[in-house]
Amino acid sequence: MKTVIFAGLGSMGWPMASNLHDAGIKVVPYDVDAEKVQEFQRRTGTGGEVNPSLPTVDGLLIMVVNAQQVRSLLFEQGMIEKLKPGACIVQMSTISPADSAKISHEIRDVRVDLHFVDAPVSGGVVGAQQGSLTIMAAGIPAALTACRDVFEVLGGAIFPAGDQPGQGSAFKSVNQLLCGVHIAAAAEALSLAEKNGLDLETMVEMLGASAASSWMLKDRGPRMILPPDEITSVVDIFCKDLGIVCESAKQSRAYTPLANASYQLFVASSERGEGKLDDSQLIRTYRLLNGM
Amino acid sequence: MKTVIFAGLGSMGWPMASNLHDAGIKVVPYDVDAEKVQEFQRRTGTGGEVNPSLPTVDGLLIMVVNAQQVRSLLFEQGMIEKLKPGACIVQMSTISPADSAKISHEIRDVRVDLHFVDAPVSGGVVGAQQGSLTIMAAGIPAALTACRDVFEVLGGAIFPAGDQPGQGSAFKSVNQLLCGVHIAAAAEALSLAEKNGLDLETMVEMLGASAASSWMLKDRGPRMILPPDEITSVVDIFCKDLGIVCESAKQSRAYTPLANASYQLFVASSERGEGKLDDSQLIRTYRLLNGM
Repeated sequence: MKTVIFAGLGSMGWPMASNLHDAGIKVVPYDVDAEKVQEFQRRTGTGGEVNPSLPTVDGLLIMVVNAQQVRSLLFEQGMIEKLKPGACIVQMSTISPADSAKISHEIRDVRVDLHFVDAPVSGGVVGAQQGSLTIMAAGIPAALTACRDVFEVLGGAIFPAGDQPGQGSAFKSVNQLLCGVHIAAAAEALSLAEKNGLDLETMVEMLGASAASSWMLKDRGPRMILPPDEITSVVDIFCKDLGIVCESAKQSRAYTPLANASYQLFVASSERGEGKLDDSQLIRTYRLLNGM
Repeated sequence: MKTVIFAGLGSMGWPMASNLHDAGIKVVPYDVDAEKVQEFQRRTGTGGEVNPSLPTVDGLLIMVVNAQQVRSLLFEQGMIEKLKPGACIVQMSTISPADSAKISHEIRDVRVDLHFVDAPVSGGVVGAQQGSLTIMAAGIPAALTACRDVFEVLGGAIFPAGDQPGQGSAFKSVNQLLCGVHIAAAAEALSLAEKNGLDLETMVEMLGASAASSWMLKDRGPRMILPPDEITSVVDIFCKDLGIVCESAKQSRAYTPLANASYQLFVASSERGEGKLDDSQLIRTYRLLNGM
């Protein structure tokens, strides 16, 4: 791909679009917030229209908040009309497998000459900045091949998730099941330790060195026992992502008791007004229930 | 410590006692199974009585299955009488914090001249064999100092858990909470993937490379998707260990929904007659509920 529209210049999309620009790919930025588009153009020295109309565009990369925004972009804001025949629509947002499959069919109802690649990512803002995202990409082989250069700029690891739309999002939902449950498990373990009066710093160190370890424990554990000085991902993100996991499990009629229990803990944190806190602060819900 | 009684020559105790012998510590083996004791003596070239009576013993290391066996050893089989004044009783089995604290008091009722060290381990049979166990040791500083040489032979990492009996076992129960929940979470994630028809080998590889990773996922995940050719730890071990976690949480009135749900999944596996399978086979309970 030589020219892409990058739609969604949020905390993930901005660094991803910047990395593509830095790698020599012509990036046409797009966002519902026109100021973000202008700011991106100023910083990258790219000019041109705010609302592009480029029949030479090879791909549309979408990194927005939910399926409604994906649909709005494509069909209301007309992005689907701006791609050349044979171009790829690369859906990288975290949405449900069912929504991803439906959107693929809705695209086909309007234009049959486009590819749809369902390619959500994991790795957060740090992964987006460093170009080290994990990409779970579902699509037909020709479409995945067309995306390879772009994916290699954005990601440290690219995993083929299948050839059906929805399978990339299904990979991501399995990934988020573990991420969300592991945060809740770390909060549960450390609040049990706290309730027993154990030394929490020694505990986090011990757990990280044993078979009890997880990526989330090592990353979020220290921020659970000392108030975090920065926010890397908020409680509300997991309300959304575990909500997708539970919905996906319901649709596929799968048994997911740990994901459902974890989802409810994140929702309880959010409902108390803590949705914008760092997700490590889920431990506050445990502390509340433990009378701490 | 120059001379220790090692009580409990099971799958953990045998390699631990062997490592101590190899490190030049005089090990008096003890087990309710006299044949195991004779076998240990044959293999190590140590002789002497099967039921020792040595007023020169510096320490009694205990690695048995439960608190009842610890009590039986000490008080019914008379081990408490075989130690010299100032010796350490080092309790390394996985028992509840409350039991450990109670046993410490029961020892004091019989002899006031002994130290009690509550020092359970993590790392399984492999850790026992390699001398790389994680040791969570609670006791007064003088007692922990006396144990240092022995611990360094047995363990790759030694963590001070506190100065009260029960605190080592409380550390271990927090550790086991995460180990058990992480096995159940891996089974839940992979069975959701399976239910969605996703490629499980790619899935395990992807999850192990992302923020979804855990030590248990990397170790047990491959054995969940391909039948394991060896058993490293059985389902019934986690029925016991998560049972201790739930009991400990109940006693300390702590909220542990994920540990309780995971405990019930392990119990369901055991109750179907699968208690002696590798613990990765917890996934069979998910498959059963998923109609797979």
